[in-house]
Amino acid sequence: MFENIDLILRDRCKLDKSRPVLVGVSGGPDSLCLMEVLRQAGYQIIVAHFNHKLREAADLESIAVERVAARLTIPFVVESAEVSIYAETNSLSLEEAARTLRYRFLFAQAQRLNAQAVAVGHTADDQVETVLMHLIRGTGLTGLKGMSYRTILPIFDADIPLVRPLLNAWREETVAYCAANSLKPHYDPSNDSVDFLRNRLRNMLIPTLETYNPKFREAIWRTVQSLQADHSVLKETIDEHWKKCLILQDKDYVTLDLSRLSRYSVGLQRHIIRRAVEGLMPGQETVFSVLERASDFIKDARRVRVNLTGGLSLFREGEALYVATSSADLPFDHWPQMPIQKDRMEISVPGKFELSGGWSLSAEAWRLPALAWEQASRKEDPFEVWLDAEGLPAMLELRVRREGDLFEPLGMQGHLQKLSDFFINEKLPPRARGRWPLLCAGGKIIWVPGFRPAESYRLQQTSRRVVYFSLLRPRELN
Amino acid sequence: MFENIDLILRDRCKLDKSRPVLVGVSGGPDSLCLMEVLRQAGYQIIVAHFNHKLREAADLESIAVERVAARLTIPFVVESAEVSIYAETNSLSLEEAARTLRYRFLFAQAQRLNAQAVAVGHTADDQVETVLMHLIRGTGLTGLKGMSYRTILPIFDADIPLVRPLLNAWREETVAYCAANSLKPHYDPSNDSVDFLRNRLRNMLIPTLETYNPKFREAIWRTVQSLQADHSVLKETIDEHWKKCLILQDKDYVTLDLSRLSRYSVGLQRHIIRRAVEGLMPGQETVFSVLERASDFIKDARRVRVNLTGGLSLFREGEALYVATSSADLPFDHWPQMPIQKDRMEISVPGKFELSGGWSLSAEAWRLPALAWEQASRKEDPFEVWLDAEGLPAMLELRVRREGDLFEPLGMQGHLQKLSDFFINEKLPPRARGRWPLLCAGGKIIWVPGFRPAESYRLQQTSRRVVYFSLLRPRELN
Repeated sequence: MFENIDLILRDRCKLDKSRPVLVGVSGGPDSLCLMEVLRQAGYQIIVAHFNHKLREAADLESIAVERVAARLTIPFVVESAEVSIYAETNSLSLEEAARTLRYRFLFAQAQRLNAQAVAVGHTADDQVETVLMHLIRGTGLTGLKGMSYRTILPIFDADIPLVRPLLNAWREETVAYCAANSLKPHYDPSNDSVDFLRNRLRNMLIPTLETYNPKFREAIWRTVQSLQADHSVLKETIDEHWKKCLILQDKDYVTLDLSRLSRYSVGLQRHIIRRAVEGLMPGQETVFSVLERASDFIKDARRVRVNLTGGLSLFREGEALYVATSSADLPFDHWPQMPIQKDRMEISVPGKFELSGGWSLSAEAWRLPALAWEQASRKEDPFEVWLDAEGLPAMLELRVRREGDLFEPLGMQGHLQKLSDFFINEKLPPRARGRWPLLCAGGKIIWVPGFRPAESYRLQQTSRRVVYFSLLRPRELN
Repeated sequence: MFENIDLILRDRCKLDKSRPVLVGVSGGPDSLCLMEVLRQAGYQIIVAHFNHKLREAADLESIAVERVAARLTIPFVVESAEVSIYAETNSLSLEEAARTLRYRFLFAQAQRLNAQAVAVGHTADDQVETVLMHLIRGTGLTGLKGMSYRTILPIFDADIPLVRPLLNAWREETVAYCAANSLKPHYDPSNDSVDFLRNRLRNMLIPTLETYNPKFREAIWRTVQSLQADHSVLKETIDEHWKKCLILQDKDYVTLDLSRLSRYSVGLQRHIIRRAVEGLMPGQETVFSVLERASDFIKDARRVRVNLTGGLSLFREGEALYVATSSADLPFDHWPQMPIQKDRMEISVPGKFELSGGWSLSAEAWRLPALAWEQASRKEDPFEVWLDAEGLPAMLELRVRREGDLFEPLGMQGHLQKLSDFFINEKLPPRARGRWPLLCAGGKIIWVPGFRPAESYRLQQTSRRVVYFSLLRPRELN
């Protein structure tokens, strides 16, 4: 009766015949039909019935399902719960409470009985209703593409999929199928009495829409097919670029490659930001204006930070873009920082001194042959420097900055600059400044690692006794 | 009053102030508002009014618009047409006829007056209605993403864009704006009396939907924003892969790189096929089942051809996938073929002989030094061959195949094979077989160019007098 059902079961739902499928059976036509279709196709099944205890007839219906299973010698499991009490204690709508308890039961049984999947009887009509419901509430492609033949619901189980083999069958067809197979469904499936919005859609709105287009349901069904194909291509594209852009993903923040991201189209940028936001705030749908704010921010290189939504902010640091919660403990490992609780340390030459995050300062004394001058003064790594040891005190100091610090950068003709201005000019991210290590001699800053030495003690062509300082990166950054 | 209108005019509609914008003004609140917004923003405008002659008041409204333009000293152009007559003679609905004639007028005037764009007053309400109309009729992402701020309508003009600056303003806002700017719109814009479905949506369906969600219009508007971003990313992705897959595009067929396409996801395959189909049949929306058939075909390497839709078919030839109309004159240039009307030709050595499509056969007589044997017998290009001249008749023949042709392929231990089976085994596309050139001597096929020589006259270690045949490709294939 159902075209291609064998292919759908095998290729779309990815079911195999070696392990049981747990079928949720309410006793209505859809779920009874599903049970019988699976049975006739040769799958091992277990019938699972959840009694919502919401209507007088509920217990009788439960018994009816049990009898059908017994007659067909199908294993049967049942559970009942006071859905209305659970709804009240958890401030949920009856519909949400019923759904949560039902799926919790189905997946618990599937785990216990080693089932490969939980199967439910959603039909093409349910699909149309779901999509329409999403549309009325406001949604994006993810909502409009509707339900899938096979999906994982992580809140119920990370591995066992939910499958919906009847998604392309209309409700009328399940009714006819039951009749043809001598199954007697009850006609007030518990869903109907619980989900008021869905009932109103089904019984009032869809008939109204059918006055505009008698084939309205088919039209939506085709739209869904087409959007599912679009969604899968879009998802591939975003997955691919997400991987390329992602530097680091933590529970409180995401670091993205800003230089790459800014070369992307605005649409793609927004999708990448959306993925970052939704990874940090699961279950949250990101509204368009937030994404628009994000892409405007990316475009404007002068801006440093913008608030996104729900405490999340977006900010740039050099080539990195952060999406972070307000409580995020952002990584400092890619910068040298003075150890926490140690604002200064004495530096003797030679020696090696631990900073935080695996960084360290090494100091070595050298005698420089005349010919090496040019080579040593060629600045290659900003985290190393050669200084003239002549007149340099034996004891130096590495410390955090202090209010009013001045610095005389090499090559600025003796111009004294506020260290704070120097940091701004060099675009050192503000949060890195507070504990940035500064090498000092006799109260003067003689080297700002990563940037520049000072004029004092600078290497000269005549220098012979020299000190070589280098900041060593943690091994994993090399 | 309208947030960001300057940015929308500049960045979304891409208007500049150096050339006029032709504004379609019906006299209703939306178009009057648009006119005034553009004027106040400092753009040069021309007011264009099209009188549909559909209602009694039409002429009065036309005069009212002219007066407003005169009062504000804006250039004014007008045209009227008997829309109902045009509709009848062209079997169009009144709405289609009105739209066609109106846009034809607007773009003709824009061309004549050197306008940079045609601007129309579509609002966020029109957007919601349009999307809903598409949804009810059945659509895909292209329909659901709604109208754009700036678009090209190739049937009216290939260069001048249609812009819709008010797409994010609600109709109430245009009414309020007119009131605030002392403009008196007439309240039965001609659209209303023409487009019955749209009116029913506006006045009945949307109010019904607002009983489900009072913010229904805003919900759809947000959905549209989100789908537009999705659509742009999807379009980029498809554009990129289309370029990679496309071998040749002709008005009657498209040739795609099958080996690349078959590595793509099913969703992407369907999009590529859709682009091919819609390129061959412009204006046609491809239904999902057609795309499904196409991707199933691509997956099944044993299948050679499938019908798609409206006379289009899909077929494979080696690494090429064709989407072609039934009348397509497919290219043969990449194969050697006997000239049309010339089923055989005599071949003398040496000589050069023209085949069709720029191919030719060259025959040369050589004396082979002993040491060259190994090199000559190493088969590198299947379109060249060395044969032993000993016993070879002076006159050879190049001809098309004949019923019952047999062939004794080199290296098959003298096994005689039907030529038709040989072609099948070698996977020569059927349409190439009929005029494939065969080199014959004394009634026997001695070489199938592109594949194999026969046992007879094969080159041996003792061969000294040899003939070198080669099929030369047209220059553009080298």
